[in-house]
Amino acid sequence: MGKLLRPCKIAVVGASEKEGFGGDTCRNVRELMADGSYYFVNIKGGTAFGTPCYRSMGEIPDAIDLAVICTPSRTVEGLLKEAAAKGAKAAVVYASGYSEVGTEEGRAAEKSLVRLCRELDLALMGPNCAGYVNYIDGISPFAFISQKRERKGTVGVISQSGQLALSMMDSPKMKFSYVVSAGNSSICKVEDYLDFLVDDPDTKVVAMYLEGVSDPAHFVQALKKAALKRKPIVVLKTGRSAKGQAIAASHTGSLAGTDRVYDALFRKFGVIRVDDLEELMSTALALSTLKKLPDRPEIASMNLSGGETGICADLGKRYGIRFNNFSAETLNRLKMLLPPYATPNNPLDMTTTLSYDVEKYAEALEIVMSDPATGLVAVGYTLLQEIADPAICYMAKSLELVCSKPEAKPVVMIPFAENTRNEEYTTLLEKIGIPVLPTSTYAFKILKNISEFAEYRPEDHNLDVCVPGWSAGVGKTLGETESRKLLSEYGIPFPDCADADSPENAAKIATEIGFPVAAKIDSPDIPHKTDAGCVRLNLQNAGQVTDAYREILRNAAANCPDAKVSGVQICKMIGGGTEMVIGAVSDPQFGPCVMTGLGGIFVEIFRDTAFCLAPVSRQEAMKMIFSLRGSKLLTGYRGSEALDVEALADALVAVSGFACRNLHSLKELDINPIFVRKKGACAADALVVLK
Amino acid sequence: MGKLLRPCKIAVVGASEKEGFGGDTCRNVRELMADGSYYFVNIKGGTAFGTPCYRSMGEIPDAIDLAVICTPSRTVEGLLKEAAAKGAKAAVVYASGYSEVGTEEGRAAEKSLVRLCRELDLALMGPNCAGYVNYIDGISPFAFISQKRERKGTVGVISQSGQLALSMMDSPKMKFSYVVSAGNSSICKVEDYLDFLVDDPDTKVVAMYLEGVSDPAHFVQALKKAALKRKPIVVLKTGRSAKGQAIAASHTGSLAGTDRVYDALFRKFGVIRVDDLEELMSTALALSTLKKLPDRPEIASMNLSGGETGICADLGKRYGIRFNNFSAETLNRLKMLLPPYATPNNPLDMTTTLSYDVEKYAEALEIVMSDPATGLVAVGYTLLQEIADPAICYMAKSLELVCSKPEAKPVVMIPFAENTRNEEYTTLLEKIGIPVLPTSTYAFKILKNISEFAEYRPEDHNLDVCVPGWSAGVGKTLGETESRKLLSEYGIPFPDCADADSPENAAKIATEIGFPVAAKIDSPDIPHKTDAGCVRLNLQNAGQVTDAYREILRNAAANCPDAKVSGVQICKMIGGGTEMVIGAVSDPQFGPCVMTGLGGIFVEIFRDTAFCLAPVSRQEAMKMIFSLRGSKLLTGYRGSEALDVEALADALVAVSGFACRNLHSLKELDINPIFVRKKGACAADALVVLK
Repeated sequence: MGKLLRPCKIAVVGASEKEGFGGDTCRNVRELMADGSYYFVNIKGGTAFGTPCYRSMGEIPDAIDLAVICTPSRTVEGLLKEAAAKGAKAAVVYASGYSEVGTEEGRAAEKSLVRLCRELDLALMGPNCAGYVNYIDGISPFAFISQKRERKGTVGVISQSGQLALSMMDSPKMKFSYVVSAGNSSICKVEDYLDFLVDDPDTKVVAMYLEGVSDPAHFVQALKKAALKRKPIVVLKTGRSAKGQAIAASHTGSLAGTDRVYDALFRKFGVIRVDDLEELMSTALALSTLKKLPDRPEIASMNLSGGETGICADLGKRYGIRFNNFSAETLNRLKMLLPPYATPNNPLDMTTTLSYDVEKYAEALEIVMSDPATGLVAVGYTLLQEIADPAICYMAKSLELVCSKPEAKPVVMIPFAENTRNEEYTTLLEKIGIPVLPTSTYAFKILKNISEFAEYRPEDHNLDVCVPGWSAGVGKTLGETESRKLLSEYGIPFPDCADADSPENAAKIATEIGFPVAAKIDSPDIPHKTDAGCVRLNLQNAGQVTDAYREILRNAAANCPDAKVSGVQICKMIGGGTEMVIGAVSDPQFGPCVMTGLGGIFVEIFRDTAFCLAPVSRQEAMKMIFSLRGSKLLTGYRGSEALDVEALADALVAVSGFACRNLHSLKELDINPIFVRKKGACAADALVVLK
Repeated sequence: MGKLLRPCKIAVVGASEKEGFGGDTCRNVRELMADGSYYFVNIKGGTAFGTPCYRSMGEIPDAIDLAVICTPSRTVEGLLKEAAAKGAKAAVVYASGYSEVGTEEGRAAEKSLVRLCRELDLALMGPNCAGYVNYIDGISPFAFISQKRERKGTVGVISQSGQLALSMMDSPKMKFSYVVSAGNSSICKVEDYLDFLVDDPDTKVVAMYLEGVSDPAHFVQALKKAALKRKPIVVLKTGRSAKGQAIAASHTGSLAGTDRVYDALFRKFGVIRVDDLEELMSTALALSTLKKLPDRPEIASMNLSGGETGICADLGKRYGIRFNNFSAETLNRLKMLLPPYATPNNPLDMTTTLSYDVEKYAEALEIVMSDPATGLVAVGYTLLQEIADPAICYMAKSLELVCSKPEAKPVVMIPFAENTRNEEYTTLLEKIGIPVLPTSTYAFKILKNISEFAEYRPEDHNLDVCVPGWSAGVGKTLGETESRKLLSEYGIPFPDCADADSPENAAKIATEIGFPVAAKIDSPDIPHKTDAGCVRLNLQNAGQVTDAYREILRNAAANCPDAKVSGVQICKMIGGGTEMVIGAVSDPQFGPCVMTGLGGIFVEIFRDTAFCLAPVSRQEAMKMIFSLRGSKLLTGYRGSEALDVEALADALVAVSGFACRNLHSLKELDINPIFVRKKGACAADALVVLK
């Protein structure tokens, strides 16, 4: 990566003064880089912007580290050989016409390019990329022009779209350590850039636009490193709505879908997932501007008008913000400070009288900040582009007074109308560590992102994600006895049960395990046992058991004549408790993802499910259970007894253990239902599908 | 209203050159109004900005229509008398110190002010307001200064917060017919301003910041007029999260809460409800800029990059946007136009190659527009403040080419990064009817607002809302027999049922209506019958019925010794179907609001309920039912039979009829459960609470 992103000497091949990749790269290079650190190459010679162009890289009287190839795809392979011969260890290739066009030809061209780079030992960015800018060392092999301005900062960007990388550079607020337009990522991958930025001491926050990942193990390893370092990663991952994702055959499979696996992955590693580019930029900028993170998730909101306070209260509710209840001391101090008609509360309406009083505003801020339950203070104010109102200059003084103290808690500013912020004040506020967020709807989403990041503790999560390295295929469904046996070994609780091979044997088993019992066919070929008439429940005596045995075999023979039947299972009836489902589906990239939910319609109609990428820690299991809307049904609802959620959490951890152990063979598993009871839990049915 | 908002001559009392209400009003008046249309008054005489100040209104050598009182509250009443004596029919009072301070004194001052205005027949804006600007006629008695710019347009604003009115005026994009800061609204009310703007031909869209309504009947009447005219009203109503709202005692009551009543009210009248100020402004601006509304709700999204297209697809899903599936013809035509590697779809990635080609871009737009299922086209493009990229000038030409045709469908532009828009292009696009929306998250919320407004049909709703004009109080709970009798008359179906006064009589009734039956106590004083041991279900013969009769009376005497008992009710057992709940709660302002949901935990834990303000039309009832997440349970789920949703809709309409008829006495009613069956519906329990 160093060879690619921190070269000493670069050659721009296809240099010119025209509009387009070559000319624009020359413009970018000249703007940021020192003379002597770059060479221009053009097959026709001549000069570009006064700098002579060599006819080939061979003619350059110096070694080069990086070749920036601005010419079309047919010229690329020859030029790479030339570059390698000059000692280059890295190259940037803008040209398109590779795998992204989706043709056989394109894919072949990319394969050939990859082979060549491996041979030449070249770290390649692209093809089909827009290059990068390293703002730390001032290196700018980048294909698009944007407005001139100072951009050096601490946000590291990786984008799988050149257009979106450019949009971020065009945003007047953003400041970067690196901006990388990764393109097809056929040699240097998104994962490599991520790894580099997580290690990079100049990068405080990583912002990514991600379409997909090709090396899941490397990606997971970089996420883990960032989680342990507490370096924020903010990701805009598209594909939430993508149709055409392979839908797995089973129940659990159809409920997961790749996107929920990404959600689970990001949750496990404390990665902040956002919905659009503005939220990506502004979340990253806020995290890079704050001098420290809040040490607790609660937010105190302070505004100068009742209308703004009302908006904050409602948006806070909508986006799940926790406003701390002010302590009695805080409330008393505010009452003494504010006009008599003000009602101190959080969100707080300070009333406009405070907007012209530096000391009172500062005092109000200090009171709110010193409330023990305040994690971060969100100050409401619409900072206009052109300011007609002197209030901001008083307010800025107050903020400076308070926020320059080392013990100050983090502060952000929330505007209520979109309008590029006044540059003078934005800069002043940024310097004292106060980010000006975008308009309120975004601002509250970003507050939520910051709180969640502040609250994330890597030690609550099991970060050793098992990456399988195989792709999904047709599976082999195990019979219930076999599934149960496998899962029992991992600690999933099942009722007493045995397979009977005759009516007499069935009655004997039932007598041993105690009535009432259930009888079911044991056959991997009859997945829908009830529909086939192969289940009898609540059998009270030996006679009922022998009758049921015969009837079940008769129905199996009639309804599924070709099914291989291992026998009839006799199980102790499970009574009481609440029916839940536990499932696991193995994602081809990130491995097993464990699911739970309340059974039946709750899962199927209300989609009230929780996912966690394996391995599932006990804390993660408890969080899964309590994230269900229906979790109240487990904790004692309308006077009913609280159920044993601990036992359910144990079962989730056990399923996760089973799934990780059988990483290379497990495709899906379904435990449906598992009864959670006042004491303990018991699985009534299980299905394992192996690859 | 005309006297207040369209005066010919105004007097500014408290005129000066200083900062503050008086000076700022003078500045505003001088900026917008013609010489001779205003007079300045200051008790000290002198001049303000070169205009002489009269010492009192009496000295003005002319009649005046409106007095603008910039002086403190203690001077107000005297000045109003003076104004009335000069012929003024209206006044604006900025002063605070009235009911808003929450003291006895403040309330008394406001009462006295109201009495005086009635005596003098003065239309009063305020007190505690910031005045208004009438941009149509150029009249500007307004208390705050903002940046100078041209603001005449077609959005009419009413705000219950002066600060938010000012923020709207400060937003560089907004253009207005009127901006009214309504203040305490003690004489002229929010409802009066709304009525005026709905009638006003210069106002195309009304934007409101609303905290509450004091004349619900007038408010409803203005909303109805707007709905029938199809004039859009956009409302930011705070209080979604307000704690301390009176929570009614009963089940239905606790589920409603005033805010859901506002939601129901706005839904009935097609009012667009928004979440913050930016969404309020931009929704109103978009509706005022579009030359026509879409004639169908589907949206076609066109972008120049894959990344932007992915963001649009995901945001569309999140905000419930319907992207139309392009017809085969549309897809074919796009395939011929776009590069071979593009995959035509909606959202559409046109690829960057189109951004430099006026004709191709125009053709792509025309193809997408002419798809029969396209209602509106959303063009993705980040319009920067300072433009370094020529693509926009090509694109603007294409848009002009297509959108100037009379048959063109509506178009909006969606940016992906916040940045005040380039003024030249924003103005150009606005002229051809293309609003530039705020960044994508807002943009998709606004698209949803526009689609819903376009889809709203007043004829589907019963707009004759019954406003009760009474306030909530302690209610009188009716017994079940009485409740059932009342509701039966309005067409709510109940099972065969009769009251027994002896065990023998109970058995006789049961034999007549047919077994199995249920027996329950009939007493208004025992609301929780099951807990008191006063319900017996599924009685199969006369013996069981007589036993049950005795047991129920014994339990009632033991558990509720003071209860007045009317007898024991014998009802036919209802079997099968799905349990639903129907309720109604009468809002003190807007009258009865009808609720339905699936019974038990679905209502209580999943909060899966639907509300509609009475009267409920049949279409509204069907929409309520299908808006439930659990509605699949009614329409045939996993092979179960479809249930009679028509019968449920009939019951909702019947409950609405009952509630409207008993408007002045009904407090709440609960039908829980009502069984919806394969054919018909049947209520098993009902409770009516009267005032």
